[in-house]
Amino acid sequence: MTLNQDSPYEVSPRNRVVRRSERAHYDRKTVHEILDSSMLCFIAYQVEGQPFCTPITFWRRDETLYWHGSAASRMLRNQADQVEVCVTVAHLDELVLTRSAFGHSVNYRAAMVFGRARLIRDSEEIRQAAADLLDKFYPGRSGLVRAPSVAELKQTRFIKMPIEQASAKVRKLPASAEPEGDHDSPVWAGTIPVRQVLGAAVPCEKLAPGVEMGLDLRQLQPGAVFDEVLRRSPLGD
Amino acid sequence: MTLNQDSPYEVSPRNRVVRRSERAHYDRKTVHEILDSSMLCFIAYQVEGQPFCTPITFWRRDETLYWHGSAASRMLRNQADQVEVCVTVAHLDELVLTRSAFGHSVNYRAAMVFGRARLIRDSEEIRQAAADLLDKFYPGRSGLVRAPSVAELKQTRFIKMPIEQASAKVRKLPASAEPEGDHDSPVWAGTIPVRQVLGAAVPCEKLAPGVEMGLDLRQLQPGAVFDEVLRRSPLGD
Repeated sequence: MTLNQDSPYEVSPRNRVVRRSERAHYDRKTVHEILDSSMLCFIAYQVEGQPFCTPITFWRRDETLYWHGSAASRMLRNQADQVEVCVTVAHLDELVLTRSAFGHSVNYRAAMVFGRARLIRDSEEIRQAAADLLDKFYPGRSGLVRAPSVAELKQTRFIKMPIEQASAKVRKLPASAEPEGDHDSPVWAGTIPVRQVLGAAVPCEKLAPGVEMGLDLRQLQPGAVFDEVLRRSPLGD
Repeated sequence: MTLNQDSPYEVSPRNRVVRRSERAHYDRKTVHEILDSSMLCFIAYQVEGQPFCTPITFWRRDETLYWHGSAASRMLRNQADQVEVCVTVAHLDELVLTRSAFGHSVNYRAAMVFGRARLIRDSEEIRQAAADLLDKFYPGRSGLVRAPSVAELKQTRFIKMPIEQASAKVRKLPASAEPEGDHDSPVWAGTIPVRQVLGAAVPCEKLAPGVEMGLDLRQLQPGAVFDEVLRRSPLGD
């Protein structure tokens, strides 16, 4: 893609951050990093006026988001043809405890992305998406495992959504950011970090003898912070 | 609330799990536990046909979900009057790595809740909600900190949403749940746990001398699994 990575996303009422606009970011780098750091997104869409919010594994290549699922999925059937969606990712970073009830908050990074979802119909594009899905989370793994068969691909739908607009919102404030008059109160105040971390891998009970974890999984060490692992492995760009 | 906790949520096309219905749960206990285990939810709603998906801190008391924010929030202004929303929570539990591309998955717990949001206008109900917000995450803290002033409450909107319908979807399958023909392949397969854990608390730089963390924060120890901490502290019920 030849898009200028320095140009921010166009801002309109749809993606303008209204409240706390000092926390808003519209540059592609900030939005991409928040997206790339997460395996799960939440997709808002509507069917006959009823809103739905569905969590799903997703990935980004350049200025397009992708997700997939069963051909039997109600959501994916509904998203086949240019359906308006809003895709959101949020990372909870810190609990913020203050001496006033009003000052309590959380520090976070969130991205909200707008566009129209559509079914991928081209078989080569489907194969690339199927490979990207593995390689985003386990770099190189698509070349190690058995590739999807024609029958398996028929059971699967891949959806793509070119990003039309996006915004990021980031809060990172200390507990002292409350009225100074509260600072002397004898109540504990501070921040408590929250992290999504990986545990120790559990081998499959059917694992062939002598098989070890490969380079594709080398970043998935016990204790690794998952969003940092994912952020280091963008596709494309 | 005198609702029979044993009666499941009514199932209609809106909340029926279409795909993988063997993973579906409609009983209140399962739905409540998934909701109670999370601090963040994602709310889908629409404004003039445009879907939005907003992450927000929320809490449950009996059969009602609550959230709050600034009186200047666009979302909260739009949700004042019986607006249809879908509130979703998802916990990513395990990465599932298989020997076939097709078999890869994640194990998760998700809940999707439907209802109509409305602004809380009664001042006593607002005060209860403000206390619940703190006590859900930090049991007893509302009695320790400075209560919100009238001016602070004027800057805040509390929204409530009685649960009309809900469903939960839980996947917990081993890596061996792929075609047996793939089991002999010399590729590592297994599961890798993912957990949201707490880090070491960082005291506020303005903390009054000698103030220690109180009983309200006793569960928030370094290394504690956040969703387990939250699940142990439901409000109401």
